[in-house]
Amino acid sequence: MSVLLIFYALHSILSLSREGRSKDDSMKELEMVQGSNTDGWIRAVRPEIKPPSLKDNTADADRIITALQRELEGEKVLMDFSLIHQIPSFLGRHGYDMRAVLYKDHGAWRVMDILSTESAGPLYGLAMDLGSATIVVRLLDLNSRQKVEEITFINPQMEIGPDILTRIHFANEEGGLERCRSLLLTGINEHIGFLLEQRAIEPGRIVGMSVAGNTTMTHFLLGLNPYGLCREPYIPVINKPALIEADKLGLNIHPKAPVLIFPNVGSYFGGDLIAGILALGMTDREDVSILIDVGTNAEVVLGNREWLMACAGAAGPALEGGVASMGMMAGPGVIDRIIIETPSDEFRIRTIGNNPPLGICGSGLIDLVAQLFLAGMIDMRGRFVEGRCGKRLSSIEGMRHLVVVASEDSADGNDLTISQSDIDALLRSKAAMYTILTTITQMIHLSMKDIRHFYISGTFGSFIDPKSAITIGMLPDLPLETYQPVGNTSLSGAELALMSEDARDEIYRIRDRVTYIELNVNQDFMNLFSAARFIPHTDKSLFPSVK
Amino acid sequence: MSVLLIFYALHSILSLSREGRSKDDSMKELEMVQGSNTDGWIRAVRPEIKPPSLKDNTADADRIITALQRELEGEKVLMDFSLIHQIPSFLGRHGYDMRAVLYKDHGAWRVMDILSTESAGPLYGLAMDLGSATIVVRLLDLNSRQKVEEITFINPQMEIGPDILTRIHFANEEGGLERCRSLLLTGINEHIGFLLEQRAIEPGRIVGMSVAGNTTMTHFLLGLNPYGLCREPYIPVINKPALIEADKLGLNIHPKAPVLIFPNVGSYFGGDLIAGILALGMTDREDVSILIDVGTNAEVVLGNREWLMACAGAAGPALEGGVASMGMMAGPGVIDRIIIETPSDEFRIRTIGNNPPLGICGSGLIDLVAQLFLAGMIDMRGRFVEGRCGKRLSSIEGMRHLVVVASEDSADGNDLTISQSDIDALLRSKAAMYTILTTITQMIHLSMKDIRHFYISGTFGSFIDPKSAITIGMLPDLPLETYQPVGNTSLSGAELALMSEDARDEIYRIRDRVTYIELNVNQDFMNLFSAARFIPHTDKSLFPSVK
Repeated sequence: MSVLLIFYALHSILSLSREGRSKDDSMKELEMVQGSNTDGWIRAVRPEIKPPSLKDNTADADRIITALQRELEGEKVLMDFSLIHQIPSFLGRHGYDMRAVLYKDHGAWRVMDILSTESAGPLYGLAMDLGSATIVVRLLDLNSRQKVEEITFINPQMEIGPDILTRIHFANEEGGLERCRSLLLTGINEHIGFLLEQRAIEPGRIVGMSVAGNTTMTHFLLGLNPYGLCREPYIPVINKPALIEADKLGLNIHPKAPVLIFPNVGSYFGGDLIAGILALGMTDREDVSILIDVGTNAEVVLGNREWLMACAGAAGPALEGGVASMGMMAGPGVIDRIIIETPSDEFRIRTIGNNPPLGICGSGLIDLVAQLFLAGMIDMRGRFVEGRCGKRLSSIEGMRHLVVVASEDSADGNDLTISQSDIDALLRSKAAMYTILTTITQMIHLSMKDIRHFYISGTFGSFIDPKSAITIGMLPDLPLETYQPVGNTSLSGAELALMSEDARDEIYRIRDRVTYIELNVNQDFMNLFSAARFIPHTDKSLFPSVK
Repeated sequence: MSVLLIFYALHSILSLSREGRSKDDSMKELEMVQGSNTDGWIRAVRPEIKPPSLKDNTADADRIITALQRELEGEKVLMDFSLIHQIPSFLGRHGYDMRAVLYKDHGAWRVMDILSTESAGPLYGLAMDLGSATIVVRLLDLNSRQKVEEITFINPQMEIGPDILTRIHFANEEGGLERCRSLLLTGINEHIGFLLEQRAIEPGRIVGMSVAGNTTMTHFLLGLNPYGLCREPYIPVINKPALIEADKLGLNIHPKAPVLIFPNVGSYFGGDLIAGILALGMTDREDVSILIDVGTNAEVVLGNREWLMACAGAAGPALEGGVASMGMMAGPGVIDRIIIETPSDEFRIRTIGNNPPLGICGSGLIDLVAQLFLAGMIDMRGRFVEGRCGKRLSSIEGMRHLVVVASEDSADGNDLTISQSDIDALLRSKAAMYTILTTITQMIHLSMKDIRHFYISGTFGSFIDPKSAITIGMLPDLPLETYQPVGNTSLSGAELALMSEDARDEIYRIRDRVTYIELNVNQDFMNLFSAARFIPHTDKSLFPSVK
């Protein structure tokens, strides 16, 4: 059994809370880092152009280019053929007073557009977190560097299948790739359109975009068949896409706007994680930090300014029934916190929006299992303890269930229950996570205690209670302040790379520095994994805080 | 009266022989220069690519790029988005054995196409001399660097008007520019198609093209309105076009083939002349040489490895009647040489193809006037000397004509005659030429004698007898070996720039080094001009060889 498939179970459970994460968490980290990056690679320049005369009959295009070069400290300026065509009529209407929009690519500035100064106004960019489940698009003012607006929406490819393997197989059938791409693109364009309408901004004002996503989603956006990603030897079509003009991708923004697609390290290590490393400044510091991101893939990266080690779990087939009885995406009425009171054994639940309870999300489930263990209602193997569970325990089709919320208190009049198999699935997932963390740190002869920052992004980070995760032995027993929720670092990284040339260049350096480790499921690994399936662990000395 | 308009008369006369020039003259010079340029900027490379494995799961695109980079000494390799799309299906069909076609642009190699090695075969390029009257396209084998085929055809824009000003005005009317461009492009594509059909070569095998033409023709090919070229302050839309992909220009060769359009110095100094300077290696040498090119514009450039001075005559309105009585384009039956025998006064004529005489071309006209002067039939002012012309002289509508070929000997049964105004026009033109040569050399404190090479390209060069040109005082009285016909240097230069990166880069250096001189028609100039209207000159000491 592949560790990657085990990993998927963890993801299935945890991704339930994805929708509900706080939008602004990611901004905190971003503000920390952005101070050092003040060099935009997309710029509007108003060049000083002397009109031609008999003494200086330089051609119009060359005159504009030379003037722009002066403004840009002599750096090379290139103008595309299609734009040169527009020069005569532009000059006829507006003369030599203009605002040029340029972007830097391979050491040269490319003129994207020429605008009249009368039509001056802010220019914008978009940063996108291209998730398999959820997509977030952030609208940014390129001058003030402020967030203007943001929109989050379900990836329209969910229609094909919630898990990415289904989509990859679908895309490999006749017409499937185009369908996957077109669903995605239509959805993105619709939501961009909506975002711009709200602020009455013309699409042509969006002069740059950056996209951080996993390798598969990146391939879909590029219209590239991701089939090679899921079979040996797991080869992407591309690791490092160049800047691509928006019209070539079919994005409804300025047709010549550069779109920065984050590079990937391989099939299981995508641009979203590179964006995370960038956003957290992991490569700026001497001390070692670790980033855990559980999205469609579960990924772990560990490192500092000198090295980066990573491993990741691929999307596996959906683990049917794992959390089926009461699991759901975070949303109004979904349980995200549970405390079992002593000595009353009363279940105190908190739901999102304080609505009547409907189901449970990933963070709620971790809380629940931790509390069941602390209350003695499950044993260290995760089995229900009949004497402690009492009448909450029932059997449905031969499977034991524990009632978390009785029918009279639930939103839909049905019992909300957790089954033995839900617990087993969570324990396999948490064991996989802990084993991977153990393995990767041991490989580089580090102890868990050497890790100064334990960043938990995305799903994990926003709702999870590290204390509960430690209690069940999913995360190592480190001081609680080591754990930092960092929100959507994929989006934060995309924003940074859009705004700063240094940051943009850094993503390729990060990519090239990552050592990706295939975790072989050998006997050692399986032994570690088996030991980690207990709550919190067979070796209780690893979790001194859990009592 | 503008010297530029005077110049036009010279062109009108001389361009008659354009069609008949020898095709191979230009090759001589080319072979001289090409030895030093062995670095192609368009290349086919067969990279050694290790197939992917679990140990090296680099993406396919990046794998190909890295392999190419190794072959190209580590220079940057870029692959366009559209090509990346084709990689999966290419690899599916052909595996990792491939031939990539690349070209170098702004210091990086761009992958233009990926071909299977089974379909190996030569790749070709086209060099084009884009003249206002005549277009020549040369097909070249990029590997052997040999000429494969060549085609010469009339510029289809002749339909709009033979002179370039008519076309510029036409293009400035509604729909006119598109019509000019489309006529040109259709003609070029038809002839390229014809050329390729003869050799059974697929258009996709043409992976590069270079085009040297005057500034106006270049603008037409680029679809840019040349109107600014003919009114103060004479501004082109563009001086230095970047490489443009063939499909963007509408050329029916490989759609991604780079098209190198020669830069221009200004309205009256085009890429054709820059190509000439390159082909002749003028900037490689210490000694001073001069290049005269009389095409649609008459251009003169003088210089060495340190400096280049140029002046040029713009296209003016057609000088009606100038050579109307018997002038025509070179072709079968057209007189290209005349000797008047002494003492018989017999006119010995030579016609192209030895056919019965139909008319006279530019070089024939220069011979004729020189011989008439030496025979005493015209005086130093160019007036017919009645006593010497005898019964050859007649008067038609008050204008004196001299019969060159009597009706019984001519092809169409009519007298072939030269009128007083034909001679006057030629003398104005030759005076303009001589004055310009005098002025430009005096400006830089050189004597005519300091000029080691006097290159005469295009129309002038192929047929003209320098001795006759000296006799009438059109060219200075230098040793005859100083004069070198160099054929179509525009085409030779285009070929060089297509074949060699050094040569390609040199054209931009040449462009930037040219000092273009506006010849003000001031009193000094007019005095020189008046003195030069006599045969050979009022100052006979300037022409000691003419007796």
